[in-house]
Amino acid sequence: MIRRPVRVSPRIFAMLLCLTAVVGFVLTMFAPSPILAAGLEKASHWRQGQKQQPRYAPTWDSLDRRPLPRWYDEAKFGIFMHWGVFSVPSYGSEWFWWSWKGAKNQDFIDFMKNNYPPGFSYADFAPMFKAEWYNPLQWAEVLQASGAKYVVLTSKHHEGFTNWPSKYSWNWNSMDNGPHRDLVGELQMAIRNNSDLHFGLYYSLFEWFHPLYLKDKENKWATQEYVKEVGLAELYELVNAYHPEVVWSDGDWEAPYTYWNSTNFLAWLYNDSPVKDTVVTNDRWGSGMSCHHGGYYTCSDRYDPGVLQKHKWENCMTIDKKSWGFRREATLADYLDMDDLVKILAETVSCGGNLLMNIGPTHDGRIVPIFEERLRNMGKWLGVNGDAIYATKPWRAQNDTREPGVWYTSKGDNVYAIALDWPTSGNLTLGVPKTSAATMVTMLGWKTPLKWAAVSGGGITIQMPMAAPSQLPCQWAWVIQMKGVV
Amino acid sequence: MIRRPVRVSPRIFAMLLCLTAVVGFVLTMFAPSPILAAGLEKASHWRQGQKQQPRYAPTWDSLDRRPLPRWYDEAKFGIFMHWGVFSVPSYGSEWFWWSWKGAKNQDFIDFMKNNYPPGFSYADFAPMFKAEWYNPLQWAEVLQASGAKYVVLTSKHHEGFTNWPSKYSWNWNSMDNGPHRDLVGELQMAIRNNSDLHFGLYYSLFEWFHPLYLKDKENKWATQEYVKEVGLAELYELVNAYHPEVVWSDGDWEAPYTYWNSTNFLAWLYNDSPVKDTVVTNDRWGSGMSCHHGGYYTCSDRYDPGVLQKHKWENCMTIDKKSWGFRREATLADYLDMDDLVKILAETVSCGGNLLMNIGPTHDGRIVPIFEERLRNMGKWLGVNGDAIYATKPWRAQNDTREPGVWYTSKGDNVYAIALDWPTSGNLTLGVPKTSAATMVTMLGWKTPLKWAAVSGGGITIQMPMAAPSQLPCQWAWVIQMKGVV
Amino acid sequence: MIRRPVRVSPRIFAMLLCLTAVVGFVLTMFAPSPILAAGLEKASHWRQGQKQQPRYAPTWDSLDRRPLPRWYDEAKFGIFMHWGVFSVPSYGSEWFWWSWKGAKNQDFIDFMKNNYPPGFSYADFAPMFKAEWYNPLQWAEVLQASGAKYVVLTSKHHEGFTNWPSKYSWNWNSMDNGPHRDLVGELQMAIRNNSDLHFGLYYSLFEWFHPLYLKDKENKWATQEYVKEVGLAELYELVNAYHPEVVWSDGDWEAPYTYWNSTNFLAWLYNDSPVKDTVVTNDRWGSGMSCHHGGYYTCSDRYDPGVLQKHKWENCMTIDKKSWGFRREATLADYLDMDDLVKILAETVSCGGNLLMNIGPTHDGRIVPIFEERLRNMGKWLGVNGDAIYATKPWRAQNDTREPGVWYTSKGDNVYAIALDWPTSGNLTLGVPKTSAATMVTMLGWKTPLKWAAVSGGGITIQMPMAAPSQLPCQWAWVIQMKGVV
Amino acid sequence: MIRRPVRVSPRIFAMLLCLTAVVGFVLTMFAPSPILAAGLEKASHWRQGQKQQPRYAPTWDSLDRRPLPRWYDEAKFGIFMHWGVFSVPSYGSEWFWWSWKGAKNQDFIDFMKNNYPPGFSYADFAPMFKAEWYNPLQWAEVLQASGAKYVVLTSKHHEGFTNWPSKYSWNWNSMDNGPHRDLVGELQMAIRNNSDLHFGLYYSLFEWFHPLYLKDKENKWATQEYVKEVGLAELYELVNAYHPEVVWSDGDWEAPYTYWNSTNFLAWLYNDSPVKDTVVTNDRWGSGMSCHHGGYYTCSDRYDPGVLQKHKWENCMTIDKKSWGFRREATLADYLDMDDLVKILAETVSCGGNLLMNIGPTHDGRIVPIFEERLRNMGKWLGVNGDAIYATKPWRAQNDTREPGVWYTSKGDNVYAIALDWPTSGNLTLGVPKTSAATMVTMLGWKTPLKWAAVSGGGITIQMPMAAPSQLPCQWAWVIQMKGVV
Repeated sequence: MIRRPVRVSPRIFAMLLCLTAVVGFVLTMFAPSPILAAGLEKASHWRQGQKQQPRYAPTWDSLDRRPLPRWYDEAKFGIFMHWGVFSVPSYGSEWFWWSWKGAKNQDFIDFMKNNYPPGFSYADFAPMFKAEWYNPLQWAEVLQASGAKYVVLTSKHHEGFTNWPSKYSWNWNSMDNGPHRDLVGELQMAIRNNSDLHFGLYYSLFEWFHPLYLKDKENKWATQEYVKEVGLAELYELVNAYHPEVVWSDGDWEAPYTYWNSTNFLAWLYNDSPVKDTVVTNDRWGSGMSCHHGGYYTCSDRYDPGVLQKHKWENCMTIDKKSWGFRREATLADYLDMDDLVKILAETVSCGGNLLMNIGPTHDGRIVPIFEERLRNMGKWLGVNGDAIYATKPWRAQNDTREPGVWYTSKGDNVYAIALDWPTSGNLTLGVPKTSAATMVTMLGWKTPLKWAAVSGGGITIQMPMAAPSQLPCQWAWVIQMKGVV
Repeated sequence: MIRRPVRVSPRIFAMLLCLTAVVGFVLTMFAPSPILAAGLEKASHWRQGQKQQPRYAPTWDSLDRRPLPRWYDEAKFGIFMHWGVFSVPSYGSEWFWWSWKGAKNQDFIDFMKNNYPPGFSYADFAPMFKAEWYNPLQWAEVLQASGAKYVVLTSKHHEGFTNWPSKYSWNWNSMDNGPHRDLVGELQMAIRNNSDLHFGLYYSLFEWFHPLYLKDKENKWATQEYVKEVGLAELYELVNAYHPEVVWSDGDWEAPYTYWNSTNFLAWLYNDSPVKDTVVTNDRWGSGMSCHHGGYYTCSDRYDPGVLQKHKWENCMTIDKKSWGFRREATLADYLDMDDLVKILAETVSCGGNLLMNIGPTHDGRIVPIFEERLRNMGKWLGVNGDAIYATKPWRAQNDTREPGVWYTSKGDNVYAIALDWPTSGNLTLGVPKTSAATMVTMLGWKTPLKWAAVSGGGITIQMPMAAPSQLPCQWAWVIQMKGVV
Repeated sequence: MIRRPVRVSPRIFAMLLCLTAVVGFVLTMFAPSPILAAGLEKASHWRQGQKQQPRYAPTWDSLDRRPLPRWYDEAKFGIFMHWGVFSVPSYGSEWFWWSWKGAKNQDFIDFMKNNYPPGFSYADFAPMFKAEWYNPLQWAEVLQASGAKYVVLTSKHHEGFTNWPSKYSWNWNSMDNGPHRDLVGELQMAIRNNSDLHFGLYYSLFEWFHPLYLKDKENKWATQEYVKEVGLAELYELVNAYHPEVVWSDGDWEAPYTYWNSTNFLAWLYNDSPVKDTVVTNDRWGSGMSCHHGGYYTCSDRYDPGVLQKHKWENCMTIDKKSWGFRREATLADYLDMDDLVKILAETVSCGGNLLMNIGPTHDGRIVPIFEERLRNMGKWLGVNGDAIYATKPWRAQNDTREPGVWYTSKGDNVYAIALDWPTSGNLTLGVPKTSAATMVTMLGWKTPLKWAAVSGGGITIQMPMAAPSQLPCQWAWVIQMKGVV
Repeated sequence: MIRRPVRVSPRIFAMLLCLTAVVGFVLTMFAPSPILAAGLEKASHWRQGQKQQPRYAPTWDSLDRRPLPRWYDEAKFGIFMHWGVFSVPSYGSEWFWWSWKGAKNQDFIDFMKNNYPPGFSYADFAPMFKAEWYNPLQWAEVLQASGAKYVVLTSKHHEGFTNWPSKYSWNWNSMDNGPHRDLVGELQMAIRNNSDLHFGLYYSLFEWFHPLYLKDKENKWATQEYVKEVGLAELYELVNAYHPEVVWSDGDWEAPYTYWNSTNFLAWLYNDSPVKDTVVTNDRWGSGMSCHHGGYYTCSDRYDPGVLQKHKWENCMTIDKKSWGFRREATLADYLDMDDLVKILAETVSCGGNLLMNIGPTHDGRIVPIFEERLRNMGKWLGVNGDAIYATKPWRAQNDTREPGVWYTSKGDNVYAIALDWPTSGNLTLGVPKTSAATMVTMLGWKTPLKWAAVSGGGITIQMPMAAPSQLPCQWAWVIQMKGVV
């Protein structure tokens, strides 16, 4: 993952947000969920007649027409995992090497000086990345329990260390070094045989310190030695070997997509690869492409616009507020709590996004209990409230006009209001829903229907159930399901 | 801490429990809190006339007469910390060395074979015990936030590695090896300067593999080479250097107290040591002494009798159900959750005990977030409900006859009923309290008094407040405070 | 260096030897030193008219015509150095990795099992290759003192680890890993600025375990991915960066020269490289090429035919009889002594070869004293007897017909008889030299001329000087210089 | 071994030397070998009547009367071995720890800073002292081949690490740490079962950094905590376990012998220990004792007075001129060569001393080839010339008056002249021997007698044999054996 400077001035960013909101609002006037309609229609059309499946040309114009495979939008919630040699120092962040040797951040220089012998290099960490406790079956169990529908593992981060035995990264991969195991392959097997999650892979196009990359860069991208001998070679190898259903590209921003040969790769991926029917990609395929081309949009890290988006998007974020990789020095205050996480999930899904929530395994292969607790709690919440998340579509409004902390989703004739706070009065009054005689109100996880009343001038007042704390179906947020409202 | 075999048959144990309960019940007939009365009276007497302070003879008869310093009974809640060379493998438990080389447990033999080179010894772990992230100020802050009133750190566990620079354990201590810091001294300073906790130290009398100990043992305790050259030498050094207010002895069970010279040490501790006025000791001072002589009683690990005890006691237990030292392989299911912990606290304090709750720091000196979360949550609960815990005395009943999960404590004319469950009916009906016209009922953390009614035939029905989940003062258990009940 | 199986049956080998001897003998009838005449004539011709220097075509026919630069034949004596990651275990030989993981030799499997943790890989040795004591200036001084005129360092052995910061071996080279220094570059500077030795580099064409090489091999050399992305890329980088005057190729034998693109590389090396005028190459450029094409011939390791060769050749051999890399387990009996070494030098030079004598530095960068002793002793001997070695040519006979242990060289009108043993009678009687009235006999390092007498029926008897042991000019072998003999 | 400042001013030292020489000369007038006569007579007397063996009182007066067991004076040549944790850094010398942390020598501070992580302590070296190649049988073979008759191994140097599993140095010994072997015990077995060497042990009385020692020192030796709990405890343990025939004490100089309890220990050693009949001790038993009391005298390290001594003495010295422990940075110039070593042996034995020549094994348990070469060469020389060394007595003169570099020894009616240089004239003329008609002269290793002539005015001229270098029986020095000279 990246921590690149924002490349858009705040003022322009605000204007864009505003514009997006207006456009979004106008669009919602005409259709309940128009955003993905085009794509999904095409998708269904295509599925009816696979033989006529069009081939994509290596142009953005053509590639952008490919409908997003349906599973992805329905999944809503995935787990991101950042794992690599950076998990050995597990200090600062997964950008450890860069902070130390690239940015020459004093903090990291001191960390090394204080804890390692002179001349200790980043490569010297690799033998310590042993993953001796790595148990992919147990990971699969925990991931399944989280309620997530897909997982995306870093196959290679900017450090260049491949978590699979790549021919193109000899002695700098997880089979020749450190773990001496195919980390990617083992997780793939465990996930596919023991869970219903989709398996995806993160891949960094660039490498901070690869000498061939640095040479191409010096040549101002006129040469492509690195891309040919390393980057694309690895990508093809990866797709052919592990059939990832998400190809989560990153590290694209320094060079144009023409340098990366992105459009050619995507054309192959969509036309001829073993995952051509189901694979999903993101938008990080070259400088200036993000938020404009590719599969779903990620725009920037922790992207969470708060308003409906025209194009399918994903909010990738971290439980540890400050790092994607595991950090030993993180204290409890650095971890988002369940209130935070459920809020972000509600907000993201309401606005048409997927949430990709990141955890960082340790160098010895564990998901530490604090992460496990968050994951299982998410799973508990989704076990009660999954109807309001999975396979939903954004409703005509995203959040309520009157009650703060209420986010809407919809599915069929159900409208879901996700209330982050329990109303202190015992009555939840919403401004947006328009009721009718047929309106029916329930709370997910609560057996008996709720009493409600129309509010004069629009809206609805719902009487929340009276219950002892332990009788409540869940904590952190509660979902009101309404039938027969518009 | 130990995992020794129970030395009392279950049948006898049950009989003892039963007897204790009967005796306890009889005693409660005559006085609201008779248990500690004798001791405390003496204590106050003594404080009025320090000059006449009696000297203790090195006999149990004399030593057992010493009143327990008042602070300890008032404290109720302490944190135990197991830290040592065992924190490096951090596998299995703090008994790692014994499991591997003493019991020759196959699991541990395999662990070593799979992860270390042949010939790797336990001593080889010491240089890896670096404690490089050890920040005693931050520990003090977390401990303070837990609501605990004392902390007990392992100064030396059965492995013999001293966490202070002992003259009697040269090159096998935290200054000569590994951390190269005085772990005990640094925590002592931080705790005393930055918290209101009392500072205590755990010390293991025996060492699994000390050759002089093994020699004495072979001699059937006829010689005391180990005790003189190591054991007592260290204990005196420790008390003189760090002034611990708890001396938590352990590892006593193989040899009689005469071998350990325990009574002499205690006589010195009570008569002449720098902590003679405030120090508290436990009961592990020789084979057969535990539960019979010394300061407060610990009896066995995780001692939690569930009924009132005649003698002040302590329930030392662990958040990680299976280990006192940090274990990397522990998953979330191995950690007690807040419901468990609050229940144990209520139960323990109601029956006259103190709770000493254990966490295990890591080899690099961290309290991992899952422990921090438990500690801070305990502090949150105690922040609301501390009145029902600190400085309380057992009430005439320990738990309710009618409502399961309700535990009583008392202070002055207040009786506290700690309800582990919120009554689903909204009304809490208790069988024990006898009301009067003057009876007043409140809930800790809730502003307005609660309505109540006497139950015909004895007892009280209390109407719990109606509140949104977020308005409740706390989670996990709620405390009803009653004035004017008997 | 290699330990490949002999690819010629002993019988055929003996026949070839015999044939060579006969041919050699016939040739010596006509000219004093005909072997290199053609080449050297061309060389001198070319030096007179550099502008007309011919360009070489990438064919053996053309490349083989290039005359050997004169410096090499005159040098006679060079030092070979095998240094790499194998210097870390420094057990068995520099073929450690192959013995362990390729041949699966039980000895090496046990060595690893007994000394390293499970899962320890060869790559894990790299961080231990620290070269912290590596002092190229001191090496240059020792090499100079040995009397050698060139040095050949392994730039990369079959393990693939480059001792220079190659762009094509990222994270598997001496700058990114272990030493974090440019081992090749530093030695080059020290040798060129502080000695009169020529600087050469050994380079292994193949790598035991490079995945791209293995892929090409699986494709039966139909693909050249490895050669293009690694092999040749590194060779060009190496020559351009360090201007080696010897390119000592190895590891060629599995694939044809067409796979290696050897002839193209050599054509570039001879026509356009920065060392085109002075560079010398050997004959290991593809399966079946050794002993047939290229620069000088090495044929097999420790090649020492004992008879005159038609083509310039080199005897590369080791002081440690069993290994090229440093072996810790070598005892004194494993090292050749000075008698052995002087004998091999005399034999080799007499038969037209150069001696390339190998030492293995340690992982921490030292030339151990036993090697230093051999080197300085060689230098002492050459300090007295260098006239009989440097810039000499083979004489018409190589060894004496009558006195065993006498080897001949010549320079101008001097004939040198190198006597490995001092005649016990005090008189040295040689069968081959034909004396005349003008014959003058001296011993190198001895001031006064020696008395001699013609032997009836041919030959000469020389009266050795009478001298106390300490007055002798040298040990190990003595050189009789004869003028006016044929 | 020590490097303490000379405690005698040069002037006084010269006077003492002079006096010793005069006294020695006077004594030689009366008897061929009076020096040890008294002692040896007693010894033989005592051997005839063991039952009356006197008991020694713990006073110097009594202890000094004990005759030196005969084997020691006859042995003449022993090998000293310094091995310990200092063999891990193997830099500087065996005083590494002191240089670094005691003297705070910048060189050592830098060495640590440049090669180890911050906080790395001396104790952290112990796990690296693996001795994995330690083969006591092979050591025994090499020691035997050196011609030595005894070996003295460091059982514990000033660092305090015991090379045997001492009960009094728990976790700081070779069984609990590093090698996990009983280094002392294994060598003892190998030497006793596979060689004819006597087995001795070096033991350091003090330890630089032992806290109990430092405490006693602070108390100005008024307390003896260290001596009782560590020093003597270990010495008794050592003698009882391994039966050393040399107890080579060291590290005595800071405290008086009364602090060390030396006389009591020696009385026990001589009266009651298992080695009472054969054990030999040296003179380092307390401040001011060296060169005055105890067994044989060592005076200072590398003591080599060059004149006859009244009391049996030993010259302990090192092949590596600068260190007793193995140093990696030593180059060839730092090693004494064979000329040096034979000269020192001749000089020492002539003057009545024994030579204890030191080598330092490596941390992995090897005797490196340069040491092995020196040892085997010594053995080769002694194989020819042992008659002039073993069991000899000093002659009336130690070196010749006329010919420099000639040293005398004697045995029965043989006088041996050890000539370090071969006379350039071919004739060796000696000033001291007085010939008669019965005089017979030979050279050790040479079959035929040598011609000689009396020199007018005293002395003898010997015609050295004429021989080819390879016919000489040995190198480095030659021994003339004369019968019938006085």
